[in-house]
Amino acid sequence: MASRSGGLDVKKVGMLGVGSMGAMMSLLMSEHGFEVHFFDPSEQNMDMLQHQGEDIQQDKRVLRAKSYEDVCKSIEISGQPKVFMFSTPHGGPADKCVDGIRPYLNQGDIIIDCGNEHWSNTERRQKALEPTGIHYIGCGVSGGYQSARHGPSMSPGGNAEALEKVMPFLRTMAAKDKDGRPCTSPVGPGGSGHYVKMVHNGIEQGMMSVIAEIWLILTHGLDLDNEEVATIFKSWNESGPLNNCFLIAIGVDIERAKGEYGQHVLSEVQDKVVQDVDEEEGTGTWTCEQAVTLHSPAASILSAHLFRCASAHLKRRMENVTSASGGVKAQKLSVKSKDDFVKLLHNTTYFCFLACFAQGLDLIREKDKKEGWNLDYRKILQLWRGGCIIQADHIADLLDGMYKRPDHDPDNILGNAEVGTELSKLYPMIKKVVLTAIEADTFVPSISQSLEYYKYETSTELPTQFMEAQLDFFGQHMFDKQSDPVGGPEKGKHHFEWKPAKGLTGK
Amino acid sequence: MASRSGGLDVKKVGMLGVGSMGAMMSLLMSEHGFEVHFFDPSEQNMDMLQHQGEDIQQDKRVLRAKSYEDVCKSIEISGQPKVFMFSTPHGGPADKCVDGIRPYLNQGDIIIDCGNEHWSNTERRQKALEPTGIHYIGCGVSGGYQSARHGPSMSPGGNAEALEKVMPFLRTMAAKDKDGRPCTSPVGPGGSGHYVKMVHNGIEQGMMSVIAEIWLILTHGLDLDNEEVATIFKSWNESGPLNNCFLIAIGVDIERAKGEYGQHVLSEVQDKVVQDVDEEEGTGTWTCEQAVTLHSPAASILSAHLFRCASAHLKRRMENVTSASGGVKAQKLSVKSKDDFVKLLHNTTYFCFLACFAQGLDLIREKDKKEGWNLDYRKILQLWRGGCIIQADHIADLLDGMYKRPDHDPDNILGNAEVGTELSKLYPMIKKVVLTAIEADTFVPSISQSLEYYKYETSTELPTQFMEAQLDFFGQHMFDKQSDPVGGPEKGKHHFEWKPAKGLTGK
Repeated sequence: MASRSGGLDVKKVGMLGVGSMGAMMSLLMSEHGFEVHFFDPSEQNMDMLQHQGEDIQQDKRVLRAKSYEDVCKSIEISGQPKVFMFSTPHGGPADKCVDGIRPYLNQGDIIIDCGNEHWSNTERRQKALEPTGIHYIGCGVSGGYQSARHGPSMSPGGNAEALEKVMPFLRTMAAKDKDGRPCTSPVGPGGSGHYVKMVHNGIEQGMMSVIAEIWLILTHGLDLDNEEVATIFKSWNESGPLNNCFLIAIGVDIERAKGEYGQHVLSEVQDKVVQDVDEEEGTGTWTCEQAVTLHSPAASILSAHLFRCASAHLKRRMENVTSASGGVKAQKLSVKSKDDFVKLLHNTTYFCFLACFAQGLDLIREKDKKEGWNLDYRKILQLWRGGCIIQADHIADLLDGMYKRPDHDPDNILGNAEVGTELSKLYPMIKKVVLTAIEADTFVPSISQSLEYYKYETSTELPTQFMEAQLDFFGQHMFDKQSDPVGGPEKGKHHFEWKPAKGLTGK
Repeated sequence: MASRSGGLDVKKVGMLGVGSMGAMMSLLMSEHGFEVHFFDPSEQNMDMLQHQGEDIQQDKRVLRAKSYEDVCKSIEISGQPKVFMFSTPHGGPADKCVDGIRPYLNQGDIIIDCGNEHWSNTERRQKALEPTGIHYIGCGVSGGYQSARHGPSMSPGGNAEALEKVMPFLRTMAAKDKDGRPCTSPVGPGGSGHYVKMVHNGIEQGMMSVIAEIWLILTHGLDLDNEEVATIFKSWNESGPLNNCFLIAIGVDIERAKGEYGQHVLSEVQDKVVQDVDEEEGTGTWTCEQAVTLHSPAASILSAHLFRCASAHLKRRMENVTSASGGVKAQKLSVKSKDDFVKLLHNTTYFCFLACFAQGLDLIREKDKKEGWNLDYRKILQLWRGGCIIQADHIADLLDGMYKRPDHDPDNILGNAEVGTELSKLYPMIKKVVLTAIEADTFVPSISQSLEYYKYETSTELPTQFMEAQLDFFGQHMFDKQSDPVGGPEKGKHHFEWKPAKGLTGK
């Protein structure tokens, strides 16, 4: 039953939820020799997967079930735990799956929830199921539907023994990095797997805003055509600090993609991103909620998120153009040498990507310390080395080198010379880009906020000195003096009556 | 018992929690002729108030109680409901007060929670108490301890009949605006009073970051001394678009305040603001959580919050200075005429303050629609016309004029010409300030983010076009075409196989 290293010899899998991600994972599993029995409340989803299975002649191993019960019966092997994969929208749909199969579950059965679930839902289900010996693993899956087809990045978290049992199965399916190592490993207990995947998506939001802002500067600002921009992205992806970046790589294809009449498809796309606002996708929103709740200044990521949310309301923006006397239109950039400026853009993208990683890892660390998860950050980087959206080889190498150094500071990524020195070298370049972009009225919410983040995180003479005085003025909030020893973020020891009010003390 | 207009003739009040805010409110009530019986688990707080009461000869009306029971017995008047005021930290302490007095409460008694409570805690207590006929009013109180002493802004929400009963009492105490009208009125049902106060504090965070950023430009950037800056703030506060702004007005006093050796107190203050990070104050954090959760792009407010959270960690910033090869130090600004630049700073401050108000009001509106509170926004503006931290007469007048117009758009403040046109006129000025500030390495997280917010909210050609294409590439997220009709923020209708992957469709 168990293969070497405590792993289960999985033969059959119950797949619940076969939308674009679930369907692709079903095909992937079947090609790896697993027998997949799938069920989805949507007949349309089931029809689609059935046809896809037939098309690639995997229909003997990708089998449509009639009900939750049917899935459970079909994957039963005497004496062996049943293994389920979920790929459903977050919240209610996953609860329905649990309810649907619950009557047929036995001690030892393992559910691997591969949806983008909120980690607290994962922990709620773990708490409900673990006492009966049923294991619920929250497993973030990244890379989108194409990656799900060929091997995604997988970040499973939950009961340690259950994780050990399914790791050989997950390793078989997962993406492999450039050295052939699988991009999956046990993340930690509870909802840590889904939490790490959530922050992956937060970092992704930051990076996507940066690359989109850069894209408009290249195309509209510098007046480069699709092929020129594709060539630039291609060269960035081939070597240097953005070496092997998934989001840069697909930029090449997007720039080149043509529709049936030879038109560039990209030029037809409306500029609204709705998937946060319509709550289809929760992870970006949750990352930002967490950054706020844990007081973690993930400024690049949050500014990206708000930008994206604002973009969703195209109609509103049209009204604003009218109310604001025509609104803002990006102009051409005024630069001496396009080639030189493209180099600045290259380094600016790198600066911002690295800032997004630092912010995301700081956020995970905050939660990790709060929960006592005791996560292994080199293993988290390994998850992100292939098959996922934020893949960025040079950045992963840089950060891995940092984590390897025995005296690195795990609580403050920017406080490590590997990151701090790198950003300080790039600072004059991003500054130049932001100045030029703002001059030309082009949009740099995340790039400019990455710049400000770096500035205020590396200074000890901030304008917040005045803010602290104001808070003490009206709120008696207390302050520390510059002559006081530097402590942690604790309440100050001094109050000053900046403007003593009559009757306050009776004096 | 009941005065005209359905109000209670309040004679005695039970005051629970007498920290700086509660103590000042107790003195205020006593001077208005109410008999205050106070209790606080902290003997120190009680001693302090007792002495303050004696000092101003209000000790006959500000009476120390021995216990929760003692408070309840002392304020009993046969046939009349008891009225309590809470002024406690949010969460647990307020729950303890409810538990403490619960055995002595009768149908009709009214608790007015004047703490900065999370609106959901307020609603939880309302739900628990209302079935027994005990009313719990969540009443935001703004203005700090000085304002609490002389008349604060008060935003009560809860049961409509209970509100009507206590309004005469609250009006007596509340701040009055320049026309003598009280800055309090019933906000709405449930937790709406605390919600509106929470967003007040969110707007406050945004405004405080802006004025602090401006302050550093004036002092360090333009090399003006304390008296020069005080004079500038004084003139801004006296007339023009920042007419009667509390945060500007206290800036004058802060610039001038001197300690016992004649030193400027401000120059001694450390640049760390800890009250969010140490969770003493929740409202700023909650406003940002709400903006994220409700997808409301309150970019100025969120960037201010993260800046403030980052500032709390002075030790961390010192480490970062080292890792980042010296970090960033603000330089002197390069400007042709200081006077002209001060005018730009004046208008920039106004631009950003107005953006903070627009963002805050949009956020309240989102929640209002979700909850069906049906709030009156002109009344909300009236709450903010005196006694509170965000008081800004010109901005309140401008927004009141907008809300008065029958065909205004309540869902999108920026979409109204009163605001849109105003910001569009100021746009070249804030742009110039941001460019000059970034050139000089000074810190403008909230000012630059206010600029970007305005830009992306008033454009229909955003770089998010590229983001939408990327999401469709890897996530099959769908998009709308530019030839499609402009709808709301709903999922697009088109998908494109940007790079068809082998085995995806079997074709």
